[in-house]
Amino acid sequence: MDNFDRLAVHTMTTKPWDLPTACAKYAEGGLSGMGVWRQWLEGRSLEESRMLLDDHGITPASLVRGGFFPYATVDEKQTALDDNFKAIDAAAVIGAPQVVLVCGAKPDLSLAESRKHITEGIASCIAHAKSVGVKLAIEPLHPMYADCRSAVNTIGQANDIIDQVGDEWVGIAADVYHIWWDPQLEGEIIRAGSRIIGFHVCDWLTPTNDFLNDRGIMGEGCINIRGIRQLVEATGFQGWIEVEIFSDRYWATDQDKYLTQIKNAYLQHV
Amino acid sequence: MDNFDRLAVHTMTTKPWDLPTACAKYAEGGLSGMGVWRQWLEGRSLEESRMLLDDHGITPASLVRGGFFPYATVDEKQTALDDNFKAIDAAAVIGAPQVVLVCGAKPDLSLAESRKHITEGIASCIAHAKSVGVKLAIEPLHPMYADCRSAVNTIGQANDIIDQVGDEWVGIAADVYHIWWDPQLEGEIIRAGSRIIGFHVCDWLTPTNDFLNDRGIMGEGCINIRGIRQLVEATGFQGWIEVEIFSDRYWATDQDKYLTQIKNAYLQHV
Repeated sequence: MDNFDRLAVHTMTTKPWDLPTACAKYAEGGLSGMGVWRQWLEGRSLEESRMLLDDHGITPASLVRGGFFPYATVDEKQTALDDNFKAIDAAAVIGAPQVVLVCGAKPDLSLAESRKHITEGIASCIAHAKSVGVKLAIEPLHPMYADCRSAVNTIGQANDIIDQVGDEWVGIAADVYHIWWDPQLEGEIIRAGSRIIGFHVCDWLTPTNDFLNDRGIMGEGCINIRGIRQLVEATGFQGWIEVEIFSDRYWATDQDKYLTQIKNAYLQHV
Repeated sequence: MDNFDRLAVHTMTTKPWDLPTACAKYAEGGLSGMGVWRQWLEGRSLEESRMLLDDHGITPASLVRGGFFPYATVDEKQTALDDNFKAIDAAAVIGAPQVVLVCGAKPDLSLAESRKHITEGIASCIAHAKSVGVKLAIEPLHPMYADCRSAVNTIGQANDIIDQVGDEWVGIAADVYHIWWDPQLEGEIIRAGSRIIGFHVCDWLTPTNDFLNDRGIMGEGCINIRGIRQLVEATGFQGWIEVEIFSDRYWATDQDKYLTQIKNAYLQHV
């Protein structure tokens, strides 16, 4: 029997669909989970967005995304914190249990400095996250994004940060696209244990033609998704499996057929 | 005083120039080192290539490249070994002290399998390398190449391989482009110690528009080249500093001016 109980799809995966359309289509497809990107909340109140989700029986797995902590000026530091507080609040209103953190990096800052800003930034968000009951999920990003998207590039680094800030309100979103290559993956997932609070899937294409928007559907590429899922679930993780695919190629196709492809790939390759 | 005593330029950096032209231009520019790519040896005997280098006072810092050990069939395994033996022989004839290994990966193989093939492949080349007095330099490649170019993506992995195969004839080529993001870089360079036998420089551009051919000249990007050089030289390394830039953009420009830019960047940013 086809079981989609744990399947969540990110709104960014079906980018051409706005929130009302995505809610209707996911529900029609028998799905009950969604990774909600913040842009999809624009144009209506947060309460209305929550109602939309509720009315379709859709549960938000995560709100994407907070982070981007590294700063050049004190103003930038404050702007980043304000934005993260806003994301945390939004997650609370729509009922998302976690905000995914793309931690940030700046090419003009040293990696050491970016990493220090990130750890401090996350620490500064914890009290607020706790106050509204929303967790922060550090998503390590592939090292090819270390210049301007995230200076946190391995599960090991996320573990190091959490060692410093505590793990009551901070966990890890493990996205196979970012971590599949890591020779220390197994050990660091074991070390993370119950810190793993998110699991994102897609695939790595050979060749990959674009740094951002050329991901594959699960099974199209070289990632051992099932193997990584086993590692993650061996920690006790039984949460949502979130499909997060950025793809100019798929965004240009019929999104109904694409959602069917995703469901089939989930059953076959995840 | 401008000192280019340790500066070597890879023939691939000035791709439009064939070997005779590169020899003449590098010598004219006051350079005495060259990273020789194997394609540049085609069309004449190895002895003639060596004479060309000698006549211009150019010393080959390295021969690029061997490796690509992972295989699907026994035939492929043998072909890879034969090719590596051939590269080692060519290095010996032209007087290059090392063959740079791009270790290889195959999207259809698991990373564990590719890594096993690589370790075994390197081990199988050592006796031959020793017999002609040429070292093998493992070049860890950026994780964005883990699907089809190299399953060895960190200095740490190179160290692990060398722990297994021995370090008399196997060392590491540290290329800043591939390793700059690594949170364990400092510790693994210290661990490598005298295993570091090659140091390659260029820069990481933001944004980078192509997975292969959009590298920057030193100083144009975000890599802390001088910091990594200090780490490498703290191990005792005093060998060639090899400029290896793949750039469609620069290959389309006047190569004489480009070589001057490289020399200036070397003095200012390396």
